[in-house]
Amino acid sequence: MSRANRTDHIRLTSHPEPGRTSAFPIHWGATEARARGPVIGTVSRAGDRNVIGSHGGSYAMYRALAVSAGALDPIRRPDLTNTFPAATIGPFPQWSDPTKIVALDPWGHLVAENFRQEIAEGADIRPSIAVTRARLDLPEIREALAAKRLRADGEVVHSNGSVSVVKIAIDPVWYLPGLAIRFGTGETELRRTLFEQTAGMFPELVTRPDMKVFLPPIGGTTVYMFGDVTKLPDHRTKITCRVHDECNGSDVFGSDICTCRPYLIHGIEESARGAQEGGLGLVVYNRKEGRALGEVTKFLVYNARKRQEDGDAAAAYFERTECVAGVQDARFQQLMPDTIHWLGLKRIDRFLSMSDMKYDALTSQGIDIVERVPIPPELIPADAYVEIAAKKAAGYYSTDIAPEKDVDGVVGRSLEKY
Amino acid sequence: MSRANRTDHIRLTSHPEPGRTSAFPIHWGATEARARGPVIGTVSRAGDRNVIGSHGGSYAMYRALAVSAGALDPIRRPDLTNTFPAATIGPFPQWSDPTKIVALDPWGHLVAENFRQEIAEGADIRPSIAVTRARLDLPEIREALAAKRLRADGEVVHSNGSVSVVKIAIDPVWYLPGLAIRFGTGETELRRTLFEQTAGMFPELVTRPDMKVFLPPIGGTTVYMFGDVTKLPDHRTKITCRVHDECNGSDVFGSDICTCRPYLIHGIEESARGAQEGGLGLVVYNRKEGRALGEVTKFLVYNARKRQEDGDAAAAYFERTECVAGVQDARFQQLMPDTIHWLGLKRIDRFLSMSDMKYDALTSQGIDIVERVPIPPELIPADAYVEIAAKKAAGYYSTDIAPEKDVDGVVGRSLEKY
Repeated sequence: MSRANRTDHIRLTSHPEPGRTSAFPIHWGATEARARGPVIGTVSRAGDRNVIGSHGGSYAMYRALAVSAGALDPIRRPDLTNTFPAATIGPFPQWSDPTKIVALDPWGHLVAENFRQEIAEGADIRPSIAVTRARLDLPEIREALAAKRLRADGEVVHSNGSVSVVKIAIDPVWYLPGLAIRFGTGETELRRTLFEQTAGMFPELVTRPDMKVFLPPIGGTTVYMFGDVTKLPDHRTKITCRVHDECNGSDVFGSDICTCRPYLIHGIEESARGAQEGGLGLVVYNRKEGRALGEVTKFLVYNARKRQEDGDAAAAYFERTECVAGVQDARFQQLMPDTIHWLGLKRIDRFLSMSDMKYDALTSQGIDIVERVPIPPELIPADAYVEIAAKKAAGYYSTDIAPEKDVDGVVGRSLEKY
Repeated sequence: MSRANRTDHIRLTSHPEPGRTSAFPIHWGATEARARGPVIGTVSRAGDRNVIGSHGGSYAMYRALAVSAGALDPIRRPDLTNTFPAATIGPFPQWSDPTKIVALDPWGHLVAENFRQEIAEGADIRPSIAVTRARLDLPEIREALAAKRLRADGEVVHSNGSVSVVKIAIDPVWYLPGLAIRFGTGETELRRTLFEQTAGMFPELVTRPDMKVFLPPIGGTTVYMFGDVTKLPDHRTKITCRVHDECNGSDVFGSDICTCRPYLIHGIEESARGAQEGGLGLVVYNRKEGRALGEVTKFLVYNARKRQEDGDAAAAYFERTECVAGVQDARFQQLMPDTIHWLGLKRIDRFLSMSDMKYDALTSQGIDIVERVPIPPELIPADAYVEIAAKKAAGYYSTDIAPEKDVDGVVGRSLEKY
């Protein structure tokens, strides 16, 4: 048996069988799902694949471990019985505008319905979006009820303080030509940079220009919706919205160095209130830990900030991140508006954020923002004034104090005082 | 100019210059950092690289976007001034035992110290671990103080309810031969499966058997330590420990379908109490959302559970996950003990978990567990009895009721009742 005929021969995906094209072409921006075509990241039927990468974001790696451990049959197909969305989202005109949605699959929650036949015939088509319902039970919301800032209505907020939501998990699906436009670069340049700067992850980025869709191994987005979601298509509906980037140390553990959890909880409370007033509330949670630089970088920056000669000063807040990471912020809000487009929204009535980057990203994508709501001063934790002062000085939106005045004097806790 | 000489020539990392070896060999398990060698995932000096993949876990992708957007200079080196650990961890004998640590770099927090000269000469060596300090401010801990379950001592727990911790972020660094042993497979088989099941991420997994270390693009671990960390090397120190796998929906948003946040908060409260009694508390937070199947899969499973003919029953709890995902659980606790080894621990006195998988993983790695502490019944949310009953029936540890009895009758809320 020649080497080429060995049954354990590994075919590098960068160089597939010549002339082979997928049985399922993707026409990004088509007006309906079947014309667009399914997004197929299967690893068990190579001829069906029409994307670079695999489904599940970075959890593809754990699926690979499950196969390694003998716990998961690699050719197994998901049984999607009863998994269909627990609330109707769309379709909306934005779904077929290839300039509006480039970082998610707008039909990703409807694959079982739209590709029933192909799935029955063995195609490995998986949802990249899932829509379910939940009841949130948060101590801060119970406190808001006790303080009569919020009232129970039995629909949105219940008498025990729990809150009803529709929640949606979204895995990233990147249309590379559209992504390149958002980042102001060429598609070839983008592909090459993604390949080189990840140390060669997915050679197909450079060898397969015919593959236009990429499933990157990164965390996704979760959307929490408050109120009657059937009002989503009605453009008169008042929208209250917080777009929140993950900060595990504050969101989960309540670290007092930043305003993340307080602002998030404020977003939940205001979203619930907006829903009670007949509108819709929206909290969008993006997995972009530590300004998308990761938690190791974030903690290194904390140490550098706390050990500066003049203490943890607002004046040097952004500079310290740039010293350690080479960039002040890697979140790149350019892709964030996709979620808002996907929900069919053209306007946010109350935007619960001080970030100019988020504001600019949304408005430059044609989404009107009527009112910007900064975090109420009483919600800012003791050690977080450094962050707030630095952000205001850098031009973040605020309504209260003059931005230049309060930077030099604001100093946080030193490492010895924890 | 011939094609091979084009300056924009892309060299696939799967086929580097023949005969080229890294200037920095890695000797995993060596007794000190310089003998072990630095872990170098740089993308700007190819000759220095000695691993597959790049640093920062899945955030490598955002770094690539930052370069694409022109915001980050790709050859920039981090300035590590003042970033050194805010508490001393190790060295411990476990650091040089290649059977005990295979999924992190035990010297990852000390690179600026151990490789000062190489870094000064331009080598791109980055920390994969960062150690800082924080003050946690959690409403549930304030409630515990008000209810006098916990008292302020001014060191661990402060009078305003905030809690002092040392916190540590750890990025994954996988030594592939050791990983293969943990998963009971061969190194070649493991490499091939990781390559194939991720749809060809990193061809070097199969083409570069000489590269033994892999930086996978997945989320990492955060360790929160309560009490005097200088007691870590003293084997008489009583250790209270919660190993927690991420569940964003509960940990952050308080979804009442599971016990995740309640158990986590219980872990924080018990860890603080253990520290007040002169011991050390430890909460280990692993980014393994939805049993490492991701949140999209998790929400699909919720829908399938809630829509079963007999309602959301404990009897079918694990089955529904397996139907959708092909496997009941992909967390594979086999790698989890590395964090405990890294902290030099041989014994956990109070282990705050009902999971047999976690218990078995730790004890099979030679870590004694003196007492297992299940979640107190009063902390179980309304809709989460399905999960608890299913877990007990499946043999999860509990002290109260007989496991077989309570499965059939336990039914959760239906999707219409949210």
